Amino acid sequence: MDDKAGLAIALEEARQSYAEGGIPIGAALIDSTGKLLGRGHNMRVQLGSAIHHGETSALFNSGRLPARAYKGATMYTTLSPCDMCTGACLLYGIARVVIGENKNFLGGEAYLKQRGVEVTVVNDPECTALMDKFIAEKPDLWNEDIGV
Amino acid sequence: MDDKAGLAIALEEARQSYAEGGIPIGAALIDSTGKLLGRGHNMRVQLGSAIHHGETSALFNSGRLPARAYKGATMYTTLSPCDMCTGACLLYGIARVVIGENKNFLGGEAYLKQRGVEVTVVNDPECTALMDKFIAEKPDLWNEDIGV
Ligand SMILES: [Ca+2]
Ligand SMILES: [Ca+2]
Ligand SMILES: [Zn+2]
Ligand SMILES: [Zn+2]
Repeated sequence: MDDKAGLAIALEEARQSYAEGGIPIGAALIDSTGKLLGRGHNMRVQLGSAIHHGETSALFNSGRLPARAYKGATMYTTLSPCDMCTGACLLYGIARVVIGENKNFLGGEAYLKQRGVEVTVVNDPECTALMDKFIAEKPDLWNEDIGV
Repeated sequence: MDDKAGLAIALEEARQSYAEGGIPIGAALIDSTGKLLGRGHNMRVQLGSAIHHGETSALFNSGRLPARAYKGATMYTTLSPCDMCTGACLLYGIARVVIGENKNFLGGEAYLKQRGVEVTVVNDPECTALMDKFIAEKPDLWNEDIGV
């Protein structure tokens, strides 16, 4: 699976969340062989959860895995990962993080790089447009999600 | 609520997890007024979850809160927080982290301090004994939980 395909799944998840009245941030975790381990989206609204961000939902939906399953894996996410999701990627030794956009939010990219994770920012206009729209519509919900 | 009481709740949660056949790590999130916001324990076994550590479970059980609710809050945890839980504390601007023990695992304490969080390690023998026992009984489960 190439990066275009991985990010497309993350964006599909983000759009699904938007359709559910939730926060439109999605992610997909792909292993070193290109297999999808799990995909997910922010579930703050849908589950009343403070811990189901896009990336953590993808990890949750990947189920219980031994550490070796994550080796060389890539986390695709529509938006730059917050401190919690940055930490989740570090915990599981995820090798690469591919980010749709970081205009609407700049998360732990520097820290990921410092810790040896390969970080790519795609600057995808569809990702940016989706978050632009959501933040304009529901600024308080957005602030709640990022602890602001 | 003083630190002794806060850590006692976290240890109660850890013991509950052990009784459920799970990983015995617990946490409690207390706000600046001493009120309990939420308590929880590792749910890897109970929920099949890669994201419900002790601290993240306490956050999950605290429900959806505005950022100001976490201001000046303390996270009590029986074991030094991993990268994910360290990140979760940072995301929500938690002011203090009080840790039962860090003999069995040394997590993101230095990073928390670097980011301005007050970190206290209690070195509680009951916390240490509980993790000693669990790690001896189920080393593979322990490794899975910390991505090793
Ligand atoms: Ca998110
Ligand atoms: Ca834990
Ligand atoms: Zn996040
Ligand atoms: Zn943790």
